[in-house]
Amino acid sequence: MVLDPNCGYCQKGELLDEFGYLVGELETSLVIIFREQSHPGRIIVAYKEHVSEMVDITDEERNKYFADVNKVAKAMHKLFQPDKINYGAYGDGGSHLHFHLVPKYEGEFEWGTPFAMNPKETYLDEAAYEKMASDIRKELGI
Amino acid sequence: MVLDPNCGYCQKGELLDEFGYLVGELETSLVIIFREQSHPGRIIVAYKEHVSEMVDITDEERNKYFADVNKVAKAMHKLFQPDKINYGAYGDGGSHLHFHLVPKYEGEFEWGTPFAMNPKETYLDEAAYEKMASDIRKELGI
Repeated sequence: MVLDPNCGYCQKGELLDEFGYLVGELETSLVIIFREQSHPGRIIVAYKEHVSEMVDITDEERNKYFADVNKVAKAMHKLFQPDKINYGAYGDGGSHLHFHLVPKYEGEFEWGTPFAMNPKETYLDEAAYEKMASDIRKELGI
Repeated sequence: MVLDPNCGYCQKGELLDEFGYLVGELETSLVIIFREQSHPGRIIVAYKEHVSEMVDITDEERNKYFADVNKVAKAMHKLFQPDKINYGAYGDGGSHLHFHLVPKYEGEFEWGTPFAMNPKETYLDEAAYEKMASDIRKELGI
């Protein structure tokens, strides 16, 4: 499995903690709470291997990865009840396939526009991240 | 099949022409050139049915849809040779599953940041859209 020594999704630990709170693992992915929570419930689903885009994995791997993304999205709809989830994969500078799953609430922050990468406005304390992670794990059965 | 009378992806024609140039159809999707071409080669892959998100379709439909998205992304890499493709699904106001596939070029417009929904800066003439559409059709075998 290809991993990168400077990539937070590959190395986890401190590199990941800078922006994310690890919830756990699904078959092909890591589930990570995005620490910036201007959109309550915002999560990243990162592929387990250091590949750049979906075009770099096989059909079977892609099917499994999007099954994971879908599973997380369904859990988010149930737990956070957003009016819509936005799905975005950017990472121009890095090369690690991941999607931001961003719950949007009608009339609230950034409703009707693409979400900013990081508004740097709203952070929780560690206990609140762990509570959220625990709820998500329970919903995902992990 | 669920369609909506006010949705450009459902009705095509004038509603779609306002922002897109129809390339053609794949098994589960429409392939559409986004008329605003600040990112040369920007394309939309819209699901054929009026559903809001991937969570609203079956596993089999999701696999087929992302196979289409992947096919278009591979064609874009070949034709336009971007350094990265961004994939974004928003549509807070509408309810029709579609992804924007946005080629990014190192050092060029919006490199390293999420793409704007519509910069409203760069438009082509109809012959140029048709030339691009023709190249994409050839690459997709449609």
